[in-house]
Amino acid sequence: MDTVDVIRAKRDGGELIAEQIHWVIDAYVRGDVAEEQMAALAMAILLRGMTRREIADWTEAMIRSGERMDWSALGRACVDKHSTGGVGDKITLALAPAVAACGVAVPQLSGRGLGHTGGTLDKLEAIPGWRATLTPEEMLRTLREVGAVVCAAGEGLAPADRKLYALRDVTGTVESIPLIASSIMSKKIAEGAGALVLDVKVGSGAFMKTRDDARRLAGTMVALGADHGVRTVALLTAMDRPLGRAAGNALEVAEAVEVLDGGGPADVVAVTVTLAREMLATVGGGHGKDPADALRDGSAMDVWRRMVRAQGGDPDAPLPRARETHHVPAPVSGTLRRLDAYAIGVAAWRLGAGRARKEDDVSPSAGAVLHAKPGDPVRAGEPLVTLHTDEPGRFPRALEALDGAIEIDPGGAGPDDLLPLVIERVAEQSA
Amino acid sequence: MDTVDVIRAKRDGGELIAEQIHWVIDAYVRGDVAEEQMAALAMAILLRGMTRREIADWTEAMIRSGERMDWSALGRACVDKHSTGGVGDKITLALAPAVAACGVAVPQLSGRGLGHTGGTLDKLEAIPGWRATLTPEEMLRTLREVGAVVCAAGEGLAPADRKLYALRDVTGTVESIPLIASSIMSKKIAEGAGALVLDVKVGSGAFMKTRDDARRLAGTMVALGADHGVRTVALLTAMDRPLGRAAGNALEVAEAVEVLDGGGPADVVAVTVTLAREMLATVGGGHGKDPADALRDGSAMDVWRRMVRAQGGDPDAPLPRARETHHVPAPVSGTLRRLDAYAIGVAAWRLGAGRARKEDDVSPSAGAVLHAKPGDPVRAGEPLVTLHTDEPGRFPRALEALDGAIEIDPGGAGPDDLLPLVIERVAEQSA
Repeated sequence: MDTVDVIRAKRDGGELIAEQIHWVIDAYVRGDVAEEQMAALAMAILLRGMTRREIADWTEAMIRSGERMDWSALGRACVDKHSTGGVGDKITLALAPAVAACGVAVPQLSGRGLGHTGGTLDKLEAIPGWRATLTPEEMLRTLREVGAVVCAAGEGLAPADRKLYALRDVTGTVESIPLIASSIMSKKIAEGAGALVLDVKVGSGAFMKTRDDARRLAGTMVALGADHGVRTVALLTAMDRPLGRAAGNALEVAEAVEVLDGGGPADVVAVTVTLAREMLATVGGGHGKDPADALRDGSAMDVWRRMVRAQGGDPDAPLPRARETHHVPAPVSGTLRRLDAYAIGVAAWRLGAGRARKEDDVSPSAGAVLHAKPGDPVRAGEPLVTLHTDEPGRFPRALEALDGAIEIDPGGAGPDDLLPLVIERVAEQSA
Repeated sequence: MDTVDVIRAKRDGGELIAEQIHWVIDAYVRGDVAEEQMAALAMAILLRGMTRREIADWTEAMIRSGERMDWSALGRACVDKHSTGGVGDKITLALAPAVAACGVAVPQLSGRGLGHTGGTLDKLEAIPGWRATLTPEEMLRTLREVGAVVCAAGEGLAPADRKLYALRDVTGTVESIPLIASSIMSKKIAEGAGALVLDVKVGSGAFMKTRDDARRLAGTMVALGADHGVRTVALLTAMDRPLGRAAGNALEVAEAVEVLDGGGPADVVAVTVTLAREMLATVGGGHGKDPADALRDGSAMDVWRRMVRAQGGDPDAPLPRARETHHVPAPVSGTLRRLDAYAIGVAAWRLGAGRARKEDDVSPSAGAVLHAKPGDPVRAGEPLVTLHTDEPGRFPRALEALDGAIEIDPGGAGPDDLLPLVIERVAEQSA
């Protein structure tokens, strides 16, 4: 088979056959298809699209490029969750223990953040002693003993996706629904998820800026799950404003611990409980407990503490705190109408919470804390946002990110175009 | 400036500003824009197109990436010709001497063949002793003493184009009119052409398969010439059947020598004379002689012999001949309706006349000779095509290339859809 013929076929709007897709991905991993050839193909896919059949074959080829994990030795129902990423999205931290406390195992392989969205592993690494890397045997033992595990995906899972993701990042080919969907689903299927709930974020702080794009991505991933025998449901949730009140690694862990303690911001609790119920439903309901109860009765907290300890973390150790803080006051009194998620994400990133390149370190303590959410009353001069960092030289560029991101109505009118927190549910018609 | 932003702008259908174009090409030559990034951008350009202004800026940036030659020291009118490439296109060989014999200098920097179309330098190298590489001083001396020179372009001319051309070849991004036009014109303008006649081939054996595509390419290049102060005219000429009767290096030199001797196939003579008259017209007519006379009276032959000798070649030495030949007979008697240019080009290529990769050597003696052209009567069993090669193991795949390429009408009807030899002329409205 000839690489240029495959590129030309897609470039000219054709549908690639399964054999072409498997060949090109296999040859790419071997190095016989060069980076520049895959870049041209990725751009052609972005501009020409792929059919459901092509996306399924592309995903299958990426799965086959590496190992596939299998949790059947556990002898229990397993369910996984994936978020497309947002600002302040610490949901996994309380969600995995809550679902495990309801009797269903959660083996979650997570990633690190790139750009303005944080990564779950970066957040957990703010806990003193906690380590992200486990062997498959350690994962299985933790799942068996604790019921939930959140750790780094091994190098052997979908190596084609790993290579392609790095390429897309530098070639302007990230924003393709077939490529995003196949990237997420190839990893999740290779990780052995028996059932999967997807949290597809919508709004300025998400990759999908509109409901339509998010619905297309969700539909594509749900179909891919069905085509690979993984029962998959997606929820579209709001990311026009940040989730909760904290954005930044240790700051978000602290907020998740509040939720596990039966408190925490109402939106974080609502998204956690809604996703947990969907996860339980995909595998028949667990042992019947409601995850809202697991958060209230301390059973989720108990799983959390054991889960953190199983990976070397000390759940009682104080979390790192930034050496410097800077308050951004409300300029006028009134009602907060808008607090843009993307702006808060960029501010936290510039304070040190995120990385610009894969090789960068992140600061565990940097980030932003919101003192009001859209719809809340605010008073002139009182803190609206507090910025945290160890390097005060970072404040100016973080403040720049907030330019135009905050709107207050002195008349007291609330926001009129806020997205509903849970926008809609996308499932295969049979699901 | 950020590479990914430039790629995204074009990907999303935007018009790149001059600063972005100059930056990206400069950074590509320096290695700061990676091959995979330029591949993604090239695919976006292919699928989204470029405006006349963008193409002019792109061409200018490629010219500025290297040296620019200048023939003003010659003190004579200079004109260049470029063909987009076809099968049996040996026109330059007789054309350059014919124009020089009419008093106008022809400094032509040529290329080597890749794929099914031959390169002028490969043809000339079939002449014992002839060498393609001259210093600028040697070029100037030959131009002054002989009036015409055909040699290899130096490494310093439009290095951005050199790098981009190699990339496009392996990434399925060759067939973009903005990229083809800017590639050709950046080289021609850097070569110091004061005036330029373009031979844009149309048909199965050409890059442009249809008149519409060829017309668009011709119009784009004529506009680019005008935008850079180079008086440029294009002729669209037929490449649905091969030009002349020979395809292959030494075989084509022999045919060109027949034309210089006042004979040769009528189509080769007609295209040579038509292009030569256009070349002379762009610079005011030379000293008044008609190029058809220069072919008949031996003056073009005289320039040819001096031109070959000036580059170490012996115009009297016998040309290399293939060790093996194979006749393809006409299967029935009748009138030859179709003899596909692309098929003949591929057959000659597979016999050894062309190269699959830049590093390959070509055979000087391999190729195909046609005993009839569309419209000619043929008799069953008599040779229609003769294949030449030193390696008889190459015959089977060459014969495969001819499958379906030859149509004979036993009823005697001739071809009804042959392109006119010279299809149309494209010039700026003021030209």
